[in-house]
Amino acid sequence: MQQGKGLMFSVDEFQQRLARTRERLSERGVAGMLVHTPENMYYLSGYHTPGYYAYQTMLVPTSPAKPPVLLVRRLEESNVREFSWIDTRRVYTDIEDPIELTAKVVKESGLEHATLAIEKSAWFLTVANLEALARLLPGVTFVDGSGVVEQGRVIKSPAEIAYIRKAARAAEAAMRAGLDTTAAGRTEDEVAAEIYRAAILAGCEYTSLPQFIASGYRSSITHATWAGRRIEPGDVVYYEVVGTVQRYSASLYRGATIGPPNDKIKRMSDATIAGLERVLETMKPGVPCGDVAEAWADAIVKGGFDRPHKRAGYSIGISFPPDWGEGHILSLKYGEKRVLEPGMVFHVPSSIRDEGVALVGNSETILVTDRGSEALTHFPRQHFVK
Amino acid sequence: MQQGKGLMFSVDEFQQRLARTRERLSERGVAGMLVHTPENMYYLSGYHTPGYYAYQTMLVPTSPAKPPVLLVRRLEESNVREFSWIDTRRVYTDIEDPIELTAKVVKESGLEHATLAIEKSAWFLTVANLEALARLLPGVTFVDGSGVVEQGRVIKSPAEIAYIRKAARAAEAAMRAGLDTTAAGRTEDEVAAEIYRAAILAGCEYTSLPQFIASGYRSSITHATWAGRRIEPGDVVYYEVVGTVQRYSASLYRGATIGPPNDKIKRMSDATIAGLERVLETMKPGVPCGDVAEAWADAIVKGGFDRPHKRAGYSIGISFPPDWGEGHILSLKYGEKRVLEPGMVFHVPSSIRDEGVALVGNSETILVTDRGSEALTHFPRQHFVK
Repeated sequence: MQQGKGLMFSVDEFQQRLARTRERLSERGVAGMLVHTPENMYYLSGYHTPGYYAYQTMLVPTSPAKPPVLLVRRLEESNVREFSWIDTRRVYTDIEDPIELTAKVVKESGLEHATLAIEKSAWFLTVANLEALARLLPGVTFVDGSGVVEQGRVIKSPAEIAYIRKAARAAEAAMRAGLDTTAAGRTEDEVAAEIYRAAILAGCEYTSLPQFIASGYRSSITHATWAGRRIEPGDVVYYEVVGTVQRYSASLYRGATIGPPNDKIKRMSDATIAGLERVLETMKPGVPCGDVAEAWADAIVKGGFDRPHKRAGYSIGISFPPDWGEGHILSLKYGEKRVLEPGMVFHVPSSIRDEGVALVGNSETILVTDRGSEALTHFPRQHFVK
Repeated sequence: MQQGKGLMFSVDEFQQRLARTRERLSERGVAGMLVHTPENMYYLSGYHTPGYYAYQTMLVPTSPAKPPVLLVRRLEESNVREFSWIDTRRVYTDIEDPIELTAKVVKESGLEHATLAIEKSAWFLTVANLEALARLLPGVTFVDGSGVVEQGRVIKSPAEIAYIRKAARAAEAAMRAGLDTTAAGRTEDEVAAEIYRAAILAGCEYTSLPQFIASGYRSSITHATWAGRRIEPGDVVYYEVVGTVQRYSASLYRGATIGPPNDKIKRMSDATIAGLERVLETMKPGVPCGDVAEAWADAIVKGGFDRPHKRAGYSIGISFPPDWGEGHILSLKYGEKRVLEPGMVFHVPSSIRDEGVALVGNSETILVTDRGSEALTHFPRQHFVK
């Protein structure tokens, strides 16, 4: 065992994460798992790099007698040394085949005739990768292990929540800078530049999605962000900003109008704030996620708008690009029967889109506590007038 | 046919891209292709969004008699309207199954008994996605279509090169800001904040990898970027910055020392500059990519350092996170027999790592011209003293 200078949790916490994962693998009756999701590799080992576009994996044998193995590109080995508590590692150079090395590591761990879990929903295990691996390991039965590690990630520990709180401070700084810079005559780029600057100075790392800021009709384009447009009187400006600390994110969403907003914009903002507050009241341990979505939708409809077709929110925690959310783990969506538990964290972007005109919304990053909920982001909950 | 306000190439250029892709599909004897790579969807349709973490695809029937179809999340439809020239689209809401919709679209296009290409190396087509699709379309034979669209992308048109030139201006502005901010006593975060600010003000969009800046021993950690470290006298600081314009990137790499560099750092920088210049001399149409890697390695070895284990460079063009390069399309690596052609663009990070101590390097983004090569990035090629 090593202890990298950049290790971000106690070795004890990492060992617990690994032990719980092994228990779940054991329950599934598999002899081990090849992990290909960068977030899951980080969660279990501490290792991370922006270079996960090159193939990498972590072999987790179910038996504690066999050590986990990190398999990474030779160039990324320095990140294992810096960030991980696991020192069993194998590397490949740019002219070697990482899938051959993966097969070799499986054999060396005595698992070449075993049933192994592999994440069939992981982006960075391609169909071609798995086909090649299956050819090289004809004795292995691969079963889907998507969600095995995520089951641990969805409940945050106190140390993880502490990082999300720090991330919330960076998101708030970004929002403040965005609002302060916004004025008629300024460009979206000028606002974005100050958002990035403020977020980074408040401790934000590289983010898993861009900071979002768009003005006028562009605000109604989903996930639109700065594109040089000059802000005009009467424009709605939308900001969906994020702080990311040790890869844990908190997001925050607000809107503004250049000059007084018209009645419709006001009603849209009021409804999204009412929706957000209904969510905060509804969230507590034991409540099904679907009920939270219904409570939100109810407030939006009561505000005079259509029943939303999108989810009310999504789990948030560890992330690498291209998504800051964990919506694939758990979302606040219609019909979702899984229930809230203490330590879950969600981003709830309560928004209404007037197609081609404007998007208005308010959000918080929200922790499920023992008895209810707590907004981790702190920012005046209102539509701003600039 | 529509013409989005945000359409970034002429409809004629898009139609040529589509026609060439159809020719390649025809040569492979397939009736169509399901495209799942965000870069390829953008290349063919103009459609793009940071929200590609939600499933999306583009069906390209080989026959020009059948229109291509974009299939996206309902929430992303506004991006089709804004950015695409293709208006045949299908959407799914957050409680519908996009794979079922994909199967439906294949059937509606009369391709349910056809052989279809699908990208088995695409990140955003998961193993689980393809398994589900194959179950829903038992009459379809899926064959690997990885690289079919990329074959077009690797040669850049004049309009594409113009965007890369603009991106190079943003990278240069970022580098200038990084160097100007660097000083003993400043933190990596302060430098990163100014790099982001300058890049965005020079027209840079959200980037596909972070801007990289790391100091001291951290510079030797591959892909390390700002982490709050305070810069000290004697530190090496490394900068690998990028500009991204209309999703086309140009990257640029330089180094600095706080105070005069020691002899080893000087020799490292000299060797990387010599390597870069050998690459610029060697690159011309008809030269195998492997020869460029050998020329680079030769200069590094002549400078007194080990033969590198990494590639000399990689194709660069359209990108979305998590990689700004197109190394999977074409890399300047040992043994690569494919030859350079006019219109190819590469980023060549000529670097030497002194493990645990420092990374020193110089790079340019380089265009293959009709007769040789042209550095698209313009910045003094030297190791800086701060």
